Amino acid sequence: MTAPELRVDSERLQHDLDELSAIGRSERDHGIYRMALSEGDMAGRAWFRQRISDAGLELYVDGAANTHARLAWDGERPSVMTGSHLDSVPGAGHLDGALGVVVGLECLRRIQELQLPLRYPLEAVAFTDEEGRFGGMVGSQAISGRLTPETIFNARDLNGITLVDAMQACGYNANDALRARRTPESLHAFVELHIEQGPILDRSHTPIGVVDAIAGLFKWDVRLLGSANHAGTTPMTMRNDAFGGVAELSGEIPRILEEDGSPRSVATIGRVQLFPGAANVVPGKAEFSLEVRDTDPLMLERLAEAFRKAISAIARRRGLMFEFEVLSELTPVKCDPGIVGVIENVTRDLGINATVMASGAAHDTQMMAGLTRAGMLFVPSKDGRSHSPAEWTPWEDIETGANVLLNTLYRLAS
Amino acid sequence: MTAPELRVDSERLQHDLDELSAIGRSERDHGIYRMALSEGDMAGRAWFRQRISDAGLELYVDGAANTHARLAWDGERPSVMTGSHLDSVPGAGHLDGALGVVVGLECLRRIQELQLPLRYPLEAVAFTDEEGRFGGMVGSQAISGRLTPETIFNARDLNGITLVDAMQACGYNANDALRARRTPESLHAFVELHIEQGPILDRSHTPIGVVDAIAGLFKWDVRLLGSANHAGTTPMTMRNDAFGGVAELSGEIPRILEEDGSPRSVATIGRVQLFPGAANVVPGKAEFSLEVRDTDPLMLERLAEAFRKAISAIARRRGLMFEFEVLSELTPVKCDPGIVGVIENVTRDLGINATVMASGAAHDTQMMAGLTRAGMLFVPSKDGRSHSPAEWTPWEDIETGANVLLNTLYRLAS
Repeated sequence: MTAPELRVDSERLQHDLDELSAIGRSERDHGIYRMALSEGDMAGRAWFRQRISDAGLELYVDGAANTHARLAWDGERPSVMTGSHLDSVPGAGHLDGALGVVVGLECLRRIQELQLPLRYPLEAVAFTDEEGRFGGMVGSQAISGRLTPETIFNARDLNGITLVDAMQACGYNANDALRARRTPESLHAFVELHIEQGPILDRSHTPIGVVDAIAGLFKWDVRLLGSANHAGTTPMTMRNDAFGGVAELSGEIPRILEEDGSPRSVATIGRVQLFPGAANVVPGKAEFSLEVRDTDPLMLERLAEAFRKAISAIARRRGLMFEFEVLSELTPVKCDPGIVGVIENVTRDLGINATVMASGAAHDTQMMAGLTRAGMLFVPSKDGRSHSPAEWTPWEDIETGANVLLNTLYRLAS
Repeated sequence: MTAPELRVDSERLQHDLDELSAIGRSERDHGIYRMALSEGDMAGRAWFRQRISDAGLELYVDGAANTHARLAWDGERPSVMTGSHLDSVPGAGHLDGALGVVVGLECLRRIQELQLPLRYPLEAVAFTDEEGRFGGMVGSQAISGRLTPETIFNARDLNGITLVDAMQACGYNANDALRARRTPESLHAFVELHIEQGPILDRSHTPIGVVDAIAGLFKWDVRLLGSANHAGTTPMTMRNDAFGGVAELSGEIPRILEEDGSPRSVATIGRVQLFPGAANVVPGKAEFSLEVRDTDPLMLERLAEAFRKAISAIARRRGLMFEFEVLSELTPVKCDPGIVGVIENVTRDLGINATVMASGAAHDTQMMAGLTRAGMLFVPSKDGRSHSPAEWTPWEDIETGANVLLNTLYRLAS
């Protein structure tokens, strides 16, 4: 017996996305801004709670202010959870995390109205602060048990406002955040739908990406120290040009990735500051960021070693000193092969073109994968644009993604 | 008959340099700061006027506030002029332009006290604003007739203070600046002594550099435009990384100079700004300075063409747009071969090791060369340091330089 082909209510979904996209829209930021626990975010949460009630689903807000819609919840059986986040960066588009929340809600509504039999309850959750006002993925960290009293009480935003105060101002109690923790036994699976935020699906005209891993990364702050000299009086052979070192490293990135990385490896020099930074002075100091991502922890280790060697050799060759600081390290996360298989089967059964791929960006799924069997699916991002009002996904791809999530959730829960 | 071997009064010279080096010394700037027409500069000028009077030399302040010491001046015969500038950058050392002014004064004093016969009068001048508060080389531009009423009345410093107001506050009248202009007939020759501000003499243990040309330059502001994309989700092959373009150009500098430049060519990328400039975003825009110098105008033209081609090819190859703006262009200046020959003869006769070289930095001589036969000599800068409190020249080299200037001036004037 093949599973039934379920379809979301496309009109209702579109209506909800349209409504939500008006919330937190800011002239100043040229796009949407629903920073976690801001006015825009609270309005988004209120809207979501109302839609849950309107749908006759159970509303549950946990101690970390994650908002859950629940179907057939009985507190006994493990649930199949889906979800993403409603908060946004400044100048955001209308999809990003919001899409996964609204589609999750629609899936629960659809399964409810079709009165489909469920072996496991379903939950559609909007996680708190995915984007990072207080460090990012706060809600999914709370659920997966990664928060400690220390992290909660030390968390501050860029303006010095504490998480404790921000939660209190919104009627939440940060003391409860630890209680949002879920046991592995309380969950059967987790699946997140998200826009790709990259160009791969769009360029290959593929409507669905089945995520098999989420890239980890290391991010370094590197300083190269040479001598600041007069650009007119210092012959080329007598320079210790710190910028020359950064430029040479940039040129070596392709070689390093080819030699020690995988086709999934990326490396980026996104920030460069030169000192003194004047047209007529040979740069005596260069500070830059190096961020490297891959889905394989061993590959990341090899790449870190290769970059260390390259920087060291460049510095030696050019008479520069160097020092670097590890700004962050994130371990790659594998999605559950079982969940990947279910999503792949769904796309095959629905006759939908799909590709297995990595997520280069971080997502709440990364946290949830430590707690339960987790998987993710992507819909295309036009030109790979994200975190921008130019973010866009064709409606037919959104619909396709929603139908794939609906069928996946139903297969997992039935 | 060989010319007599003249020697400066080393003790008197040292005493004067020490006295002057206490003027404009600033704790805040960690060094000397005698910005043109500032309190420090005015104190330096007052000290210089006093030394001129003490020496029994004639004092003359022209309309551009250039301060002249004159010996045997009769307003009829053309003069042999030497000089440099007393103003400084912030955090300067005690030599730079001050050395050439004080040594010039000492040469006049010495020739006067030895009662040497002179065919031509001598002048030692301190030029106004060489360093650029109001654009740079204001005094030598005035003398060489390059100022116009428009440039005078439009000149403003970085704080918006006009040259007119700054001169008035110091008791000068900007209207007189045009009257500082000298006729070619009023000058027989000009020679400037300056520290090298580069490492060439110091590294080769050569006490004297005989300058045969002052480099010209072009300075561009270049913008490369790509796409700002998520550093995690954008595969390496789908990037239009603007920084990659700057880095590639930096790597091509040696090739371009070798192919289209001379051993005297230098090219510097001293300023780079990336947008948005975040570790996790592929740079969508890079703005940078490119400054290229050479002593040959044709070479500069070839280099400009080569850099244009290189930037254009890099942009094409990487899917970037580019635009550039010419920030400044300075034509190279040749020193007078006759003056170069006299200085070379002096060093040979005194048994002093000297090397013919270019000046990579700009100097008042550049302006004076448009008016009269002009030449320049350098003394070593320890480690090439300049515009820094670390600027230093061994005393024996200063003495050597002073003696070479003294003998040169006397040969030119006798």
